[in-house]
Amino acid sequence: MSDVTIKDIAEATGVSYATVSRTLNNRSGVNAATREKILQAAKDLGYRPNIHARSLKTNQTFTLALIVPDISNPFFSDIALAVNKTAYQYGYNTILCSTNWDPEIEKAQLKLIQDQRVDGIIFKPADRSPDLYLDLNIPTVMISNLVANGLSFIEVDNFKGGKDTAQHLIQCGYKKFSFIGGAKESRSNSDRLEGYRKTLEKHGYQLSEEKIRFGPFTIESGYQIIKSLMGTNDPPDCAFCGNDLIALGVFQYLVETGISVPEKFGLVGFDDVYFASLPQIQMTTVAQPRSQMGSMAVNTLIKRIENGSSSFVEHILLEPKLIIRKSTRNYS
Amino acid sequence: MSDVTIKDIAEATGVSYATVSRTLNNRSGVNAATREKILQAAKDLGYRPNIHARSLKTNQTFTLALIVPDISNPFFSDIALAVNKTAYQYGYNTILCSTNWDPEIEKAQLKLIQDQRVDGIIFKPADRSPDLYLDLNIPTVMISNLVANGLSFIEVDNFKGGKDTAQHLIQCGYKKFSFIGGAKESRSNSDRLEGYRKTLEKHGYQLSEEKIRFGPFTIESGYQIIKSLMGTNDPPDCAFCGNDLIALGVFQYLVETGISVPEKFGLVGFDDVYFASLPQIQMTTVAQPRSQMGSMAVNTLIKRIENGSSSFVEHILLEPKLIIRKSTRNYS
Repeated sequence: MSDVTIKDIAEATGVSYATVSRTLNNRSGVNAATREKILQAAKDLGYRPNIHARSLKTNQTFTLALIVPDISNPFFSDIALAVNKTAYQYGYNTILCSTNWDPEIEKAQLKLIQDQRVDGIIFKPADRSPDLYLDLNIPTVMISNLVANGLSFIEVDNFKGGKDTAQHLIQCGYKKFSFIGGAKESRSNSDRLEGYRKTLEKHGYQLSEEKIRFGPFTIESGYQIIKSLMGTNDPPDCAFCGNDLIALGVFQYLVETGISVPEKFGLVGFDDVYFASLPQIQMTTVAQPRSQMGSMAVNTLIKRIENGSSSFVEHILLEPKLIIRKSTRNYS
Repeated sequence: MSDVTIKDIAEATGVSYATVSRTLNNRSGVNAATREKILQAAKDLGYRPNIHARSLKTNQTFTLALIVPDISNPFFSDIALAVNKTAYQYGYNTILCSTNWDPEIEKAQLKLIQDQRVDGIIFKPADRSPDLYLDLNIPTVMISNLVANGLSFIEVDNFKGGKDTAQHLIQCGYKKFSFIGGAKESRSNSDRLEGYRKTLEKHGYQLSEEKIRFGPFTIESGYQIIKSLMGTNDPPDCAFCGNDLIALGVFQYLVETGISVPEKFGLVGFDDVYFASLPQIQMTTVAQPRSQMGSMAVNTLIKRIENGSSSFVEHILLEPKLIIRKSTRNYS
């Protein structure tokens, strides 16, 4: 194992020992460019804080927990990778919990995590009941804009994602709008729907109740819901989906039944996971900056842990970005 | 929360209290059909063992750890889902660790897991150095046929997967074979290569050294390696890839550069993750029974934990299955 010291990093970067130490201990007063340079050098040189020595001094476990609803969704596994990587740079290990969108499992996992003495939690809740999260006795950063209490959170502006999608589908000339959502209880999902619905109404379009559907955030669910919608008397000519997996299931059904995308049917996903940009897929979708969300969540959490006070609360709302590809018509 | 008891399950299924108890405590002497019926009823009724009471009695934590190299690979996240689900049925929570194929992180995670007092570990190692795994003081099931010591393992027959692929590509009429592997250190990967290479040689074909490449198990790596191979004087006309992510990257490059699949180039992946069967992809690949692997790993581990003796060792080698789709030529 390497024995890279703060001194080695100071020499490699030409930055003072104090500044390297401040950066690696995540103290303030280091500008972003210098900080970046130091962290890169630390990584290149293979620097690892001496966890054993730190633990004896501080009684910390240097372990973070990340709790997400579904680790098989590439959106969450990308966040997990970024959390893992950033935490590791700070000298923390990460354990992951996947709750399968089940509030009972979520409750059990939260209990477990507290018993295991982790130093902090990054938590994407399965639903929006705030009572579950109120009595956490461990520093926590939510990936959700639940502001029932004084927790920090990082989230994208889901309402704006829905709004941008509605505007785009209108510009493309689609007329019969549908929303194929994920779990009804998901706050992100309902914010996306609200932005979409309100923007459609503002432009004089209706989103009728029978064209708003919910189900699991899965390919299979998207496939089944579009099948059901296309079998009605008044099928939609476009769909905004709760995430990219749902959109992929919709796309699969359309390809199999010969409904041409984007000519006859326009399709927008959410997340921009890796398959959305494949040449065979080319899906229009609303991108969330997943890696950034994961690393910012760790940065915020570590500041909160190493500050040791509950007064440090950050609310970060990131901009989503509509990525126009080939599952919606050209307009000009 | 529900208060479903063993008695409730006995009444619902018409099976004796003793048999339900034996099943839920994972004792022997219950036939498979009855066991299945009881577990299904327990699940439907929302039965959860009283973990707190059990823990007081047994000093167990009722927590398992699953350690995998890359949770963003759908192969591992599918295993994680199955492990989570099966463990939960037994009344165990699962924590996940992703090692990013890095032996240093792997070592740190193993240390952490032992400190956290989990009851058992399911472990897919990043490389094949057995010394890392020799001194585990916790019941462990490997997802890898490392038999350096008395650990249980579950693995597919990777050699046979490579053999079947070689036979198929020969039957399709491809002549210039390549292997685009994942990490050179991966045992699964090298077993696939060996089955492929030996079968090609048996049929009088060469797999030249310059057509055997290694890299990360990622889309990006597949893309870069095929780009490099196609730029040589003697490019391949087919590739067997270390996993489906690599194959997807190869496919992406071929589509972008207008090389027709399967006419000009035949492509075989490994794993059969969800995107391989999409109508837009239709990739020929070697399927691994991921859900079965996850649930069998838990079954084996729980038996080992609840037996309390290290004498219980199972070695399970599953058959992989070549799934022929449209990324290889028809033959008849």
